Amino acid sequence: MTEGSPIPLPLAWSDKAKRTKDSPISFLIAEAMRNPSLVNFAAGLVDPWSLPVEECLEITRRILSDVDRGRRALQYDTTLGLNDLRRQCLKHLASLEETPVEKLGYGPDEIVVTTGSQQALYLIGDILVNPGDIVIAANPSYFVYTGTLQSLGAHVMAVPMDQHGMDVDAVAKLLEKLDRSGEISRLKLIYCTSFYQNPTGLTLSADRRPRLLELVKKYSRTHRILLMEDAAYRELRYDGPVERSIKSYDTTNQFVASSYTFSKPFAPGIKLGYTVMPKDLAHAVIAQKGNHDFGSSSLNMHIAAEALADGSYLKHAEVLRGVYRRKRDLVLAALKKYFGRGGDGAGSPSDDLPDAEHPIHWTHTHGGLYVWLTLPPSIDTSRTGPLFGAAVDAGVIYVPGEYAFQPDEDGHVPQNHLRICYGSVHPDQIEPGIAKFSAVVKKLLAKTPRPVAQATGL
Amino acid sequence: MTEGSPIPLPLAWSDKAKRTKDSPISFLIAEAMRNPSLVNFAAGLVDPWSLPVEECLEITRRILSDVDRGRRALQYDTTLGLNDLRRQCLKHLASLEETPVEKLGYGPDEIVVTTGSQQALYLIGDILVNPGDIVIAANPSYFVYTGTLQSLGAHVMAVPMDQHGMDVDAVAKLLEKLDRSGEISRLKLIYCTSFYQNPTGLTLSADRRPRLLELVKKYSRTHRILLMEDAAYRELRYDGPVERSIKSYDTTNQFVASSYTFSKPFAPGIKLGYTVMPKDLAHAVIAQKGNHDFGSSSLNMHIAAEALADGSYLKHAEVLRGVYRRKRDLVLAALKKYFGRGGDGAGSPSDDLPDAEHPIHWTHTHGGLYVWLTLPPSIDTSRTGPLFGAAVDAGVIYVPGEYAFQPDEDGHVPQNHLRICYGSVHPDQIEPGIAKFSAVVKKLLAKTPRPVAQATGL
Ligand SMILES: Cc1ncc(COP(=O)(O)O)c(C=O)c1O
Ligand SMILES: Cc1ncc(COP(=O)(O)O)c(C=O)c1O
Repeated sequence: MTEGSPIPLPLAWSDKAKRTKDSPISFLIAEAMRNPSLVNFAAGLVDPWSLPVEECLEITRRILSDVDRGRRALQYDTTLGLNDLRRQCLKHLASLEETPVEKLGYGPDEIVVTTGSQQALYLIGDILVNPGDIVIAANPSYFVYTGTLQSLGAHVMAVPMDQHGMDVDAVAKLLEKLDRSGEISRLKLIYCTSFYQNPTGLTLSADRRPRLLELVKKYSRTHRILLMEDAAYRELRYDGPVERSIKSYDTTNQFVASSYTFSKPFAPGIKLGYTVMPKDLAHAVIAQKGNHDFGSSSLNMHIAAEALADGSYLKHAEVLRGVYRRKRDLVLAALKKYFGRGGDGAGSPSDDLPDAEHPIHWTHTHGGLYVWLTLPPSIDTSRTGPLFGAAVDAGVIYVPGEYAFQPDEDGHVPQNHLRICYGSVHPDQIEPGIAKFSAVVKKLLAKTPRPVAQATGL
Repeated sequence: MTEGSPIPLPLAWSDKAKRTKDSPISFLIAEAMRNPSLVNFAAGLVDPWSLPVEECLEITRRILSDVDRGRRALQYDTTLGLNDLRRQCLKHLASLEETPVEKLGYGPDEIVVTTGSQQALYLIGDILVNPGDIVIAANPSYFVYTGTLQSLGAHVMAVPMDQHGMDVDAVAKLLEKLDRSGEISRLKLIYCTSFYQNPTGLTLSADRRPRLLELVKKYSRTHRILLMEDAAYRELRYDGPVERSIKSYDTTNQFVASSYTFSKPFAPGIKLGYTVMPKDLAHAVIAQKGNHDFGSSSLNMHIAAEALADGSYLKHAEVLRGVYRRKRDLVLAALKKYFGRGGDGAGSPSDDLPDAEHPIHWTHTHGGLYVWLTLPPSIDTSRTGPLFGAAVDAGVIYVPGEYAFQPDEDGHVPQNHLRICYGSVHPDQIEPGIAKFSAVVKKLLAKTPRPVAQATGL
């Protein structure tokens, strides 16, 4: 190759790199940057106005005006994570579980601190999944993680969801089928976001929690199957029942890893998460993290530990519950106003919609940052479909539901869903945003030939 | 498996996990924690007394007392990294290269911000290396990265070093051999720490820099071979020639990725690095990082950007050069006093050593945090050898050199070297530490049967 040649020789990518897709949301980010006046129901950002700026100013002042502490915060720490932070997390988990620390079944050394909970999800996937291995997840699921699993070469097998979260009967059936075919030997992981799931906002119901764990135990015959509980949104609860974690049923700390984050209940800018996991898994995660970065930012770990210790974390999570509860209410009220009478999870079409036979659903959520909207099957919500472009032209952007699904046996992915994230949308923009969006939907429905009625699941 | 069974069923690890070894230094950390009075020449920590605590207090105060800026610092940022930081890094690189920004041959979008430079090294390895692929590195090398490469399944082929750094003639020979055998199709990466290498402290000489790049170009016939230049210690220069980066010869930004860090010249607690790389590689790194954490800590990126912008980064790097220059001088002086007359890279044995025929070498370094000490072949420096335990008993700990080597064709790893890191050792402890250590060595030499003279390379 001659120097300065305009077309460079290709690099020889690894199989892993070849399997790694660009994030589906990078184009959404680009779209929103091009057009900052969009009502951005797509961005997975948190509420900017309530970020704990003052608290962090005070906390960093406290840490950095004490020279010894400041030095520790600016030095490398361990790969496992700041000792004090892991102890604070343990106490915090005990209070979430309403259990004394001694009864949790794990200690601070089974808590690994990571660069956001995403890193924990990644590391655990990497440690367990060989190309061709199986992971079970819900349809729909948090697409960044299903994408990660696919880049690791996993075959992600999806089970449906309903209002009560992941369909555990469907999990049982799938496990039985995998067991009969022998493929169970390749099943490494079941992934479940147990609280206010991304993208649906739905929570796994109380009775399904121990059942899911029992299934994992039952089918852990030749090897242990890991239940990966993603609890990122646990603390953003606005109403509805208080659930225990799935982890709380795993009294011997063997089958469940549960990941938490500071991003959602505190601030993403410190990019920290923590995951409680079985001891042998923690050992392997730390070995792996030793290669990734050999430890997350000490400064951020000191900030997180101090926020937990001085009560500002808890206070702030309470503030956020207020902020997001209000926004969730505004979203549900606007959906009701513009799309129907319902808003109870079953939904119902608005009287003035031209296609009254095709129900419009949305999830009635009790926490988190998302509402999941199901449009009539005639409406294609996908990025290249007519709705998306028309919505952007009208000033609204959303995440097409297609990204969150694994295709069924025929390669089919539902294309009539979308995710509404109210994380970073200003309260005053919510109703106008839904209003504009509904106008676009109605216009499209008016144009769409009335399709054959078709059941639309979640 | 019964609940509560004492011996848990094993998890079914991925091949990757099976290849991932525990960090060789975790036992060193444990040893040092058990015994905090040790003079710790092992820890790869930075000088604690000079950490920029006041600067960071002032910078975080500035960021977080401006509400808008504070909010941006506590929100998610992009996967690529804070725009402002990447622009500041670009300017900084231009000043390091003594070149106008426009002549660098790359722009801010070819700079990727990572969680320490370690993450960049990891991601680039992961993107290029399939199990069985070849990476060329120096013997010895930064063992965290060679370990990472091995966990990715790489066959790390090592070439020797001399006082002028990686032996580029040996690289040429190896490339020719790989080319003849056809194995060159599996060569993905050449890894070279071009400034004040970890573990030797040695720098690649001026004439070898463009030659290494020319070799990479010459053998990039069917695919592009990447030259991974690790410039972590570039700014910790105390004396000796000022070298250009290897990257500066890669005028079309195609063959070289160069990684930098804030850990060494500023503070590891913000755990940030940045790497300039070819555009197609940046694209793949970002896709991969999207799965790892989808972006490093915003708060830390704002701190780093501000430190570059307000001059405190440059000022602090200058302070550190003073601090470490003094410590490096103390190490070299103590080695001279207790081990010999030399200290010029060729070294020479101390008059009072019993085994005068076996030279003791140490590297005369011009920067970085390390001096590399070569003992007579009769002295086994390995973790399980007699020196290590005796040194710990005498109050001194070091990193056995064996970790930094790839075995030769016979599986042999030299076991008479060790790394002295003066990063976190107090200046007052340096001479006493070397004194104690030399006493242990001398005692061992006195006991050791005089072995057949043997050439000891670096
Ligand atoms: C379900 C779920 N898990 C994990 C994460 C990771 O977030 P972080 O890495 O900031 O903790 C997200 C982020 O949106 C999420 O939605
Ligand atoms: C040669 C070299 N490269 C990279 C790193 C990674 O450091 P960091 O991730 O803190 O930038 C180190 C750390 O010691 C190193 O010695």
